[in-house]
Amino acid sequence: MQLSDFKAVAADYKVIFFDAFGVLKNYEGLLPGIENTFSWLQETGKEFYILTNDASRSPQELAESYYRAGSYAITPERIISSGMLAREYLDLKVNHGTVAYLGTPSSAHYLETPDLKTLPISEVDLSDVSDINALVLLDDEGFDWNTDLNKTVNLLRKRNIPVIVANTDETYPVSKTRIAIAIGAVAEMIETIVGKQFIRFGKPDAQLFMFAYERLEHADGPVSKRDILMVGDTLRTDILGGNKFGLDTVLALTGNTQPQDAEIQIRSTGIIPTYVCESVVISE
Amino acid sequence: MQLSDFKAVAADYKVIFFDAFGVLKNYEGLLPGIENTFSWLQETGKEFYILTNDASRSPQELAESYYRAGSYAITPERIISSGMLAREYLDLKVNHGTVAYLGTPSSAHYLETPDLKTLPISEVDLSDVSDINALVLLDDEGFDWNTDLNKTVNLLRKRNIPVIVANTDETYPVSKTRIAIAIGAVAEMIETIVGKQFIRFGKPDAQLFMFAYERLEHADGPVSKRDILMVGDTLRTDILGGNKFGLDTVLALTGNTQPQDAEIQIRSTGIIPTYVCESVVISE
Amino acid sequence: MQLSDFKAVAADYKVIFFDAFGVLKNYEGLLPGIENTFSWLQETGKEFYILTNDASRSPQELAESYYRAGSYAITPERIISSGMLAREYLDLKVNHGTVAYLGTPSSAHYLETPDLKTLPISEVDLSDVSDINALVLLDDEGFDWNTDLNKTVNLLRKRNIPVIVANTDETYPVSKTRIAIAIGAVAEMIETIVGKQFIRFGKPDAQLFMFAYERLEHADGPVSKRDILMVGDTLRTDILGGNKFGLDTVLALTGNTQPQDAEIQIRSTGIIPTYVCESVVISE
Amino acid sequence: MQLSDFKAVAADYKVIFFDAFGVLKNYEGLLPGIENTFSWLQETGKEFYILTNDASRSPQELAESYYRAGSYAITPERIISSGMLAREYLDLKVNHGTVAYLGTPSSAHYLETPDLKTLPISEVDLSDVSDINALVLLDDEGFDWNTDLNKTVNLLRKRNIPVIVANTDETYPVSKTRIAIAIGAVAEMIETIVGKQFIRFGKPDAQLFMFAYERLEHADGPVSKRDILMVGDTLRTDILGGNKFGLDTVLALTGNTQPQDAEIQIRSTGIIPTYVCESVVISE
Repeated sequence: MQLSDFKAVAADYKVIFFDAFGVLKNYEGLLPGIENTFSWLQETGKEFYILTNDASRSPQELAESYYRAGSYAITPERIISSGMLAREYLDLKVNHGTVAYLGTPSSAHYLETPDLKTLPISEVDLSDVSDINALVLLDDEGFDWNTDLNKTVNLLRKRNIPVIVANTDETYPVSKTRIAIAIGAVAEMIETIVGKQFIRFGKPDAQLFMFAYERLEHADGPVSKRDILMVGDTLRTDILGGNKFGLDTVLALTGNTQPQDAEIQIRSTGIIPTYVCESVVISE
Repeated sequence: MQLSDFKAVAADYKVIFFDAFGVLKNYEGLLPGIENTFSWLQETGKEFYILTNDASRSPQELAESYYRAGSYAITPERIISSGMLAREYLDLKVNHGTVAYLGTPSSAHYLETPDLKTLPISEVDLSDVSDINALVLLDDEGFDWNTDLNKTVNLLRKRNIPVIVANTDETYPVSKTRIAIAIGAVAEMIETIVGKQFIRFGKPDAQLFMFAYERLEHADGPVSKRDILMVGDTLRTDILGGNKFGLDTVLALTGNTQPQDAEIQIRSTGIIPTYVCESVVISE
Repeated sequence: MQLSDFKAVAADYKVIFFDAFGVLKNYEGLLPGIENTFSWLQETGKEFYILTNDASRSPQELAESYYRAGSYAITPERIISSGMLAREYLDLKVNHGTVAYLGTPSSAHYLETPDLKTLPISEVDLSDVSDINALVLLDDEGFDWNTDLNKTVNLLRKRNIPVIVANTDETYPVSKTRIAIAIGAVAEMIETIVGKQFIRFGKPDAQLFMFAYERLEHADGPVSKRDILMVGDTLRTDILGGNKFGLDTVLALTGNTQPQDAEIQIRSTGIIPTYVCESVVISE
Repeated sequence: MQLSDFKAVAADYKVIFFDAFGVLKNYEGLLPGIENTFSWLQETGKEFYILTNDASRSPQELAESYYRAGSYAITPERIISSGMLAREYLDLKVNHGTVAYLGTPSSAHYLETPDLKTLPISEVDLSDVSDINALVLLDDEGFDWNTDLNKTVNLLRKRNIPVIVANTDETYPVSKTRIAIAIGAVAEMIETIVGKQFIRFGKPDAQLFMFAYERLEHADGPVSKRDILMVGDTLRTDILGGNKFGLDTVLALTGNTQPQDAEIQIRSTGIIPTYVCESVVISE
């Protein structure tokens, strides 16, 4: 497996799509030196966007967290999150009544509209569910798994409503050696139990890429897919999704895919990045 | 779909295998009148066994719970539980060190031997797991899902050890209209996350039937499989397992399979019971 | 389940997306009277597009087949096929060398470019596969299953190349009572055997909808997703895909979903169309 | 990963269960020197049995093929095949009418009884299927995949009958570098399409082990599972099945599991053999 230099690769593209976790930051915060990369992107006039399977906060709040960490380049309009897709879905397809959710109150807040209120599963009264028109799985935090997952199953037996999974990740790293179960894995368990088909937003699905792509077009004329590079740390989300959307792809080895495992994983999954780079950090 | 009378059907067999939950008892306790059935079995000299996907207690404790509920016919040696298979596995294949578990302390107690101690996941120290030689998933109760499921995933990333699922059920009923998630569904989620192959005990797997069958043979000579009738309320465990083992089967409509759904479920799953009976309760 | 009149429903939308098979035509040809529907769409100034999981022919050839059947309304630019997505993928991501394929020569012809030639699996020489840069699964016809599926498996063991599935359907009807296995089901079998992740184009995936949606935008300004109605006969492709893309949806009962099964299928899958109509044929 | 010497390992057991393909023979015939192993087993008074996922021929015919290849130690009563389980199932559960099958005539011949006749799918008349009481998937050879698999799907849509899969293998090797699709993979495709639950016989399922174990008991008193060693070349069938049945297991590196892949496969699947041996051939 040949390693490429990120700067040399990216030089040939006009737009870069970045995954966030494992590429720009990890469990300890932003990668040291990542600001060099943003400076270089700005100097060279390259557009960039963050495509993230994150429905725990609004793009505004996500941008603020980068700001607080010392990264001023990542403004809200550069962030495309799976939470935005969930919000668009609810706006177009549900638009009134109550949306029950699993997640933190702040994750749900972003979904509220004047006509659509949100309710944590813990506050759902199973004997009166007629006003609940959708269920959204947002985050693995903010609820009691023992009681609220059982309540979720029973809600879905009483109401045939759309279920939206706003983060398809199965796990996420919490330290150098440990991971945590993400809401995507919980969603698969509930889906199997109730036997229904949930609606998933997030990479590798094309809709997140399309959302970013449309934002580009609204800037100054159409951009060819040939001019966009997708960078991620996970084969089955970032790279598979980028490839399928027609983009060239970079696998960065700073997150889910360990350097010693990259080659065997590429061979065994058949998900083939255009390039493999150690890191997107530009050392200078 | 033609309904048969249980007594008329059972009259032609020497041995009856019963599933417990949904056939002999439900969330409220023993089915009213079930004692008539046991009396009739004893009068007519029929052997019977309870085959249950239950690893929450020992056969002795399970029998005691029937006794306390007023059923004196169900003695410990008539009970064949998936917990017994887990215990045999550990005895043959692990036999020393520590077995970590998800479940209640009383479910784990049954697995202990002088050489094998058990430890709830909550007490596992992830920085020192070298003594843990197996993991057993016993029961959905007795642990905190938020913290202990994450700990379970991380244990399995550190130690390549056999994982035993001692109850393959996905859900169980807790009232007339509500169900709860059983440890079998949790096991599937963890298995998908860690990508490993767990060892499952319980119907429809042949091993539980074999355990009961061998007990018969040790009585008074070989019994033909043609003389055994399996009775259950669930197509994909009781009926599939009974059929595959070569037994005639009865679907009882007092549990998981509602009378109005039975025909369509039989047609859509292709799991075909020999007979369908409203209940095993003999009215007299 | 309440049935709606298609004309009354469609009157409220500016653009209609139709599935082809089971909605506009069936195994016997165009639905009798379907021309009334096209006439009404043209009189009322509604745009319409055909979204089809069909990679067996080019849009040009598909349009010709409608023309020969007597339907002059369906011009090539109104047809969005999964084959077009496969072609775009190859153009962007492969673009040189040889593409091996399962399907008829005419299905492959559409994928050829000056730099990219196609080769049926039957003509692949397994001892010299270095020039093969992708595999495309196009159609269930045009090859010998006994020999060519085995050859496909062995090709994928020798070359780690992208595999494109250009039709995700599992089956298609060939008469009132019989169905045939489609290439989508064959793709799943091969994928399981080789353990790799294939790239699928076709409903319910968002990319086919996006292709149609972009064509709209290039007409005369952006169209809101609220003004588009998706009509299909299959819950898990047409309706799930339409819903997820944010469109209102009509389930038509002239194809895969039988009138007597519609309600139970909607309840059991949790895939909920906005409307259910007996047929899109307007009787007049 | 530590390699053990097969003779040293086997010396501690009274009974050896061998998988056939990949352990005793390969695509070229019996492993050179395998007779030394059989001689040693006989000298040391060890019992041995062949447990094979093979339904293509009767045990008698399988034994004859060993005989012709020069191995006189493998008598019919030492062979336990998944075909025997299929035959027992039909005898107990179907026992009259017609069994349709996919496979060669010789594979079906073994299933016939005076009351049960067999019919290849190619000869089934789909307009008159009322006499067909079961379908058995025996072998990947002996039928035309293009036509007969479609016919199989349509038969299962007309008749709700048990479907028996008599060989669960997905593939088998046909030369040093090539494999072929086995009937087990075809069965999974058909099962997905028709949405029904098939009945599978063969490793890792316990029933094949039980069949062999019962034969032992009929010899001279009960044998402890501790005295039996299972040897196989495939983790997910031989080793998983042997472990689950409570036996010590040997992974032999002469078949499906390549020496360079063994360690990573054991770690990634979590299927852990008690020992790993290069070969069961005793060099002397």
